[in-house]
Amino acid sequence: MSVSPAIAPEAFEKLRTLLDDRFSTNATVLEQHGRDEGHLPMAPPDAVVFPNSTEEVQKVAAICHEHRVPMIPFGVGTSLEGQVIATQGGVSIDLSGMNKILQVNFEDLDARIESGVTRRQLNDYLRDQGLFFPVDPGADATLGGMASTRASGTNAVRYGTMRDNVLGLTVVMADGRLLRTGGRARKSAAGYDLTALFIGSEGTLGIITELNVRLYGREEAISSAVCPFDTLKGAVDTVIETIQMGIPIARIELLDEVQMDAVNRFSNLDYPLRPTLFLEFHGSPMGVKEQAETVGDISRDHGGGDFRWTAQEEDRRALWRARHDVAYACKALRPGGELWATDVCVPISQLADCIVQTRRDIDAANLIAPIVGHVGDGNFHVAMILDTSDEEEMKRAYEFNERLVDRALKMGGTCTGEHGIGIGKREKLVAEHRDAVPVMQAIKQALDPDNLMNPGKLFLDS
Amino acid sequence: MSVSPAIAPEAFEKLRTLLDDRFSTNATVLEQHGRDEGHLPMAPPDAVVFPNSTEEVQKVAAICHEHRVPMIPFGVGTSLEGQVIATQGGVSIDLSGMNKILQVNFEDLDARIESGVTRRQLNDYLRDQGLFFPVDPGADATLGGMASTRASGTNAVRYGTMRDNVLGLTVVMADGRLLRTGGRARKSAAGYDLTALFIGSEGTLGIITELNVRLYGREEAISSAVCPFDTLKGAVDTVIETIQMGIPIARIELLDEVQMDAVNRFSNLDYPLRPTLFLEFHGSPMGVKEQAETVGDISRDHGGGDFRWTAQEEDRRALWRARHDVAYACKALRPGGELWATDVCVPISQLADCIVQTRRDIDAANLIAPIVGHVGDGNFHVAMILDTSDEEEMKRAYEFNERLVDRALKMGGTCTGEHGIGIGKREKLVAEHRDAVPVMQAIKQALDPDNLMNPGKLFLDS
Repeated sequence: MSVSPAIAPEAFEKLRTLLDDRFSTNATVLEQHGRDEGHLPMAPPDAVVFPNSTEEVQKVAAICHEHRVPMIPFGVGTSLEGQVIATQGGVSIDLSGMNKILQVNFEDLDARIESGVTRRQLNDYLRDQGLFFPVDPGADATLGGMASTRASGTNAVRYGTMRDNVLGLTVVMADGRLLRTGGRARKSAAGYDLTALFIGSEGTLGIITELNVRLYGREEAISSAVCPFDTLKGAVDTVIETIQMGIPIARIELLDEVQMDAVNRFSNLDYPLRPTLFLEFHGSPMGVKEQAETVGDISRDHGGGDFRWTAQEEDRRALWRARHDVAYACKALRPGGELWATDVCVPISQLADCIVQTRRDIDAANLIAPIVGHVGDGNFHVAMILDTSDEEEMKRAYEFNERLVDRALKMGGTCTGEHGIGIGKREKLVAEHRDAVPVMQAIKQALDPDNLMNPGKLFLDS
Repeated sequence: MSVSPAIAPEAFEKLRTLLDDRFSTNATVLEQHGRDEGHLPMAPPDAVVFPNSTEEVQKVAAICHEHRVPMIPFGVGTSLEGQVIATQGGVSIDLSGMNKILQVNFEDLDARIESGVTRRQLNDYLRDQGLFFPVDPGADATLGGMASTRASGTNAVRYGTMRDNVLGLTVVMADGRLLRTGGRARKSAAGYDLTALFIGSEGTLGIITELNVRLYGREEAISSAVCPFDTLKGAVDTVIETIQMGIPIARIELLDEVQMDAVNRFSNLDYPLRPTLFLEFHGSPMGVKEQAETVGDISRDHGGGDFRWTAQEEDRRALWRARHDVAYACKALRPGGELWATDVCVPISQLADCIVQTRRDIDAANLIAPIVGHVGDGNFHVAMILDTSDEEEMKRAYEFNERLVDRALKMGGTCTGEHGIGIGKREKLVAEHRDAVPVMQAIKQALDPDNLMNPGKLFLDS
């Protein structure tokens, strides 16, 4: 990591002239833009800009490009691997003000939105029209941030991740050029899939300013259930069998007993302190009933208790809000503790072994770390709550995380299912994709030759 | 297009030494590798090689790279826009001998296969295990070819295209380097999505030698039906309403009356000569029944006749074989005629207008051209059967194709839903993605700086 180059005074002046009070060097604002919700140390940018339009982003990029100033796209700062931390200084480009929903096409089930729209804002807007957007990471992230980290969430087992739900993008390149990728057709074989290239590129190739996203009609019937299990393995085996049978379950989430304790305390609930599945079924009334019966049979075979059902919309929302709030629930387990939420994803045949070994490892390492996961995809998180001032504890956490990733890679999995690489997993990207990293870097070099876009992220020597 | 550089004699000798009788300069073999199933003129390579392993492909690439010889990856030659035609000479790399199914993981519903495996070979192999791979272009193409053109087919409305069903790739780069992309996890946020970049790159970035693909369990119940309509618009509106209601239909294909005539003649069937939908429902027995009833109601509202049902596997396979054979059925409409199958894809709200205007345009242009389409995705084909020696007719066909693509682009669609760009649609790629083509070319330049991989394809000035 190079030392932060102070922003060139001319660039400073040009940005202030362009944006007036939407250019800031206020220390509090800089600090707010120098951290995310992960465990990595804060590093402030030299300035923050708040553009209102794609055209303004183009002008900002052109100024930064001319003066070789690093640019860090910023949504609402909910990344977990340091993606928005300004380790090399530069200008943080805060897109949260670009939050217009530009167009909703009911007939085509798609929408065009600015990248600062958050997932809750979008779904609140769509609710009355009987539509929804399914990708739902824990935080109320912006859609631009979600695209940049290839975010996922509880619905991915049925509806896919950001990779599957973005039809096209508007991107401002490092030199201020405009790029439009994809389109509104549901499929296309026209040239390289630049949409997919930008999704998951973590701001290192350009600044996403608009998205075309897929929408879904709200299902006729939705039913959610909570089911406790005697053992972690029984819960995981239920998931595996459900997926293998091809049941189109909408959500199937595992919370271990430590996580259930955190959720009960934080959300004032009274679930049993056992490994528990949160499930949701979508479809026709008959289809939902049929799916629920089949999964009920499977879970009983694996030591599952009775399903506690929730069919009213308000109750369902409370249930999933509790699930989404696990990160905050975890933090509340240890007041003053800092969250380090790591994630891995493995082939589902390896999932039970991976989770059971990981639970044993956490206990042996004497860490406070609930396990929660989108287990239908083979993806799970370990939410370590740490005293960051305790060096010995931090060392144990670091070593545990190394072992977790190595375990997942040995099992044919990936070092991150949905949180991304950022700063925190750059070595692990090399471990997973040794041949591929040079190819990724050749693409980075081709599209951003001066390494101005979010430098220091994804690649060790950037 | 530059004049073909004769293959360097040293390269010639090195390849022959490496491969012995799996290196060929036989005129018939060269001609077979200089054409595809589309309408563009044949141009033979200077030599054809038949490697048996990824390692051999690496050695072939290293030799070609050293001597600056163009390389054209070749599967079974079923592309439609000239993707395998050797317009700049060079070596055609025939991968059809690399057809081993390396591993099938029943628990994880995935498989690792060599890129010369064809879709029928794979599904024949999987049938006894109760599994299937859904992507099914008309021809019995290789999976490597299907990945390279981002192929799709009748099942895409439910199961997605190659983009959605490939988890990872093994690729030999232009200089012989090996690249592994993706992996076996169902999702990953680890770095740039190189898998998606290679899918649809039409052999211009490297040579795909192995794929990890997703598999699906065969559904408990499958039922197919054929339903004639009074009008083309009635059939299309039935599709639109079915998709908008979120019915998880597995296949919904439109054949216009001209196409039905061709299918009846070629496959010896007796369907009414009317715009017709071929449909298929997958799911539980109850779910299939429910879906079929709902779609039956929708079709009656739009002038649909009775559903002719086919539930026996053998009959269903015959029905879909007839659907898959439309290209050959079209050719049989006019013995000696050449097929020019073009495809576009539009937002579904525009589909009825686009197809009705296109039918009118075909008739006004006095062309023999059935319409058939994967209309659930907004994708349809026009299969022109032409006398290629009639210059005036070819001019009418060319102008019709221009108008068809322009119409689709004006409607927010794409110049190709699944056939790709190849040689035939390079100008249309620029029309559709003016800002994006330079970015695509920068990536091409970064990964294949000597422009050895399938030169002359995708980009006008390559």
